[in-house]
Amino acid sequence: MNKYLLDVYNPFTVEFLYGKGSTLFDKKRKDYIDFTSGIGVNCLGHGNKKLVETISKQAKKFIHLSNIYPIKTQKECAKKVAVLSGYKNMQGFFCNSGAEANEAAIKFIRKYAKNKGIKKHNIITLENSFHGRTLATLNATGQKDKQLGFEPFPNEFIYAKDLEDIKNKINKNSVAVMLELIQGEGGIKAFDKKELQNLNNYLKEKDVLFVVDEIQTGIYRTGEFLASNFFELKPDIITMAKGLAGGLPIGLMMTNKKNIFKKGDHGSTFGGNPLCTKTAVEVLNILEEKYKAKKIQNTIGLFQKELENILKKNKKLFSSKSGIGLMLGLKLKEEKKLQSLLEICLKNQVLVLKSGKDIVRFLPALNISKEEIKLGFKRFQKSLDELK
Amino acid sequence: MNKYLLDVYNPFTVEFLYGKGSTLFDKKRKDYIDFTSGIGVNCLGHGNKKLVETISKQAKKFIHLSNIYPIKTQKECAKKVAVLSGYKNMQGFFCNSGAEANEAAIKFIRKYAKNKGIKKHNIITLENSFHGRTLATLNATGQKDKQLGFEPFPNEFIYAKDLEDIKNKINKNSVAVMLELIQGEGGIKAFDKKELQNLNNYLKEKDVLFVVDEIQTGIYRTGEFLASNFFELKPDIITMAKGLAGGLPIGLMMTNKKNIFKKGDHGSTFGGNPLCTKTAVEVLNILEEKYKAKKIQNTIGLFQKELENILKKNKKLFSSKSGIGLMLGLKLKEEKKLQSLLEICLKNQVLVLKSGKDIVRFLPALNISKEEIKLGFKRFQKSLDELK
Ligand SMILES: Cc1ncc(COP(=O)(O)O)c(C=O)c1O
Ligand SMILES: Cc1ncc(COP(=O)(O)O)c(C=O)c1O
Repeated sequence: MNKYLLDVYNPFTVEFLYGKGSTLFDKKRKDYIDFTSGIGVNCLGHGNKKLVETISKQAKKFIHLSNIYPIKTQKECAKKVAVLSGYKNMQGFFCNSGAEANEAAIKFIRKYAKNKGIKKHNIITLENSFHGRTLATLNATGQKDKQLGFEPFPNEFIYAKDLEDIKNKINKNSVAVMLELIQGEGGIKAFDKKELQNLNNYLKEKDVLFVVDEIQTGIYRTGEFLASNFFELKPDIITMAKGLAGGLPIGLMMTNKKNIFKKGDHGSTFGGNPLCTKTAVEVLNILEEKYKAKKIQNTIGLFQKELENILKKNKKLFSSKSGIGLMLGLKLKEEKKLQSLLEICLKNQVLVLKSGKDIVRFLPALNISKEEIKLGFKRFQKSLDELK
Repeated sequence: MNKYLLDVYNPFTVEFLYGKGSTLFDKKRKDYIDFTSGIGVNCLGHGNKKLVETISKQAKKFIHLSNIYPIKTQKECAKKVAVLSGYKNMQGFFCNSGAEANEAAIKFIRKYAKNKGIKKHNIITLENSFHGRTLATLNATGQKDKQLGFEPFPNEFIYAKDLEDIKNKINKNSVAVMLELIQGEGGIKAFDKKELQNLNNYLKEKDVLFVVDEIQTGIYRTGEFLASNFFELKPDIITMAKGLAGGLPIGLMMTNKKNIFKKGDHGSTFGGNPLCTKTAVEVLNILEEKYKAKKIQNTIGLFQKELENILKKNKKLFSSKSGIGLMLGLKLKEEKKLQSLLEICLKNQVLVLKSGKDIVRFLPALNISKEEIKLGFKRFQKSLDELK
């Protein structure tokens, strides 16, 4: 516990000094293979040359401009995201985090409901979902234990058990369904493509907005630009953050619904500033190139093969593998082993995450090298061997 | 209106390419004196060498680390802010914007109320206040027109007319009063020192938390590190953002109340990341030095003298001057002239802001040069002369 920081996190004790690619170094220059990328944020790893250059160059010009002046890089970034998504008529609002992107979405949904004449609207989300830590996004998050102590919440969200249950929960006041396509915090749970497509069609029929939280799944995490692309869906609203600017704070809410937000309906001081949006454009350019050259897909193939091997060799420990692309999980048979496994991994210089209660989560950078993957899994296997 | 952006802002048409100090340049290399600093964000102006260096150097090491690992610069930054504030026992939570800092404060207040056994707590804010655009901070914002269309809001906030009225509004369920000490968006309205101190004492007596929103007033804007220092107050919770990292997105909530937030009670992916907190430390070091050398105070003196002159020379247009430090306003006698004045100023290459309905707002960088101040006010006077 630190004297000057509120004690909300539970950090390990290692202190990193710098990183290079997917390797982090501590004070003693000991190297750690990073399978976490800052929980899916550092999609190009650490110290990426092109990124550092872009950041330095833009910081020299200016870091921040107010949104009372047009920001060229903001327009470029919104356009780039819209084009890469392949979805027509997408317009975006920039903010500074995943939670703020979902706040923007919830505000948008509320306004949309009002315009439709629905007075007491509801929004359906899933049990075990995670949508953020601000009050409205915490309310969207279907985890009672995280909400406890932070009431009152307006009667806005209805929590469905699973995709099928969403249909039961929809009533005449339902205005939107908000979903992660692969639950990130809730156990690396990927939904079934056909089921998702059926739900998408059902919502279109019922005239209910389909809102996809791509904060953890977006920006090529699944191998496609968005998980919505991977599953071939057509969302009405998409939220992004995490990897979008390669590590700089950024959030984006995009929608194809027109004329809902009027001038003055929303805003953000830092949102869409030149430094973050210029960097995001560079990140997207680099990743698009890697995607076109099939590099991301190759990395995914290699990483998944190694994970498959681990599963095969450690049937006593793990029951199954889950996830898509570079958002992957291994399910422990005994959940009580999770914390000590993470600690042994740290000792053995490979960084992994947890998700839910019994999942070891892997969210490596999208450009992690073959050597780093091999070395990381070697250290991971060593850690499993040491786990009692 | 841009094809790819939601139409929530009302931007001017000029497009800036880069800045240097408090001068911005457009595509034609025309120079504009910047009295806005991105609405109080670029406290060291544009292209500050030390800042650019710090950003480049840190970006090379790493931009972002997850909060599951300790972040050294985050600790340094929290300590630096606590020490500069002069308040004892302050602990902070980092996030990415002013709205997120206030969200953290509101969550904290709710938990505090629960711990105190208050079931249906209320928080008192002021009419015409501005606390942010996320749903809970919008609810805190005492402006009905901004809230309209975004209901439902829980019955949490009570809006007082003025400082005196706060006392009338306090009841046994009141757990906090949240206040800007100088209203930024609501018309550059500075409260009276004695009245603020009385209120502070009254709240202590009544055991009601005193929460100060320093998002616009903090980081030497008033000439002191915090407006709370300027007014010699003792808040329980302070929120900051804007100038803290010289333009990078950052938010900070600090409090001296212990053991309210438990592990897992709050969190943020980007919040407190190495790039933003390292830069913030550098900003604070630079400003502290300037403060100690009385440079900020001299700049304030010069700026205010020029503004005083403008007021004297233009008694037909302006009724009064308001604000403190480098957060200043001129009140127009006719509010309908505000928008055209801003446009004429832009044409004449000096950038100013509005606040409320009839205030021309000045929020220059804290290191704006003598020459820039002189030239800016020359252009401002020219604009007044042209105003019909
Ligand atoms: C799916 C999802 N939504 C929202 C969030 C919240 O994002 P942030 O922490 O940037 O506010 C997260 C963060 O982990 C997430 O994984
Ligand atoms: C006093 C005050 N509080 C809160 C905010 C919200 O900050 P942000 O736009 O960074 O969310 C602002 C922004 O102008 C502000 O002036």
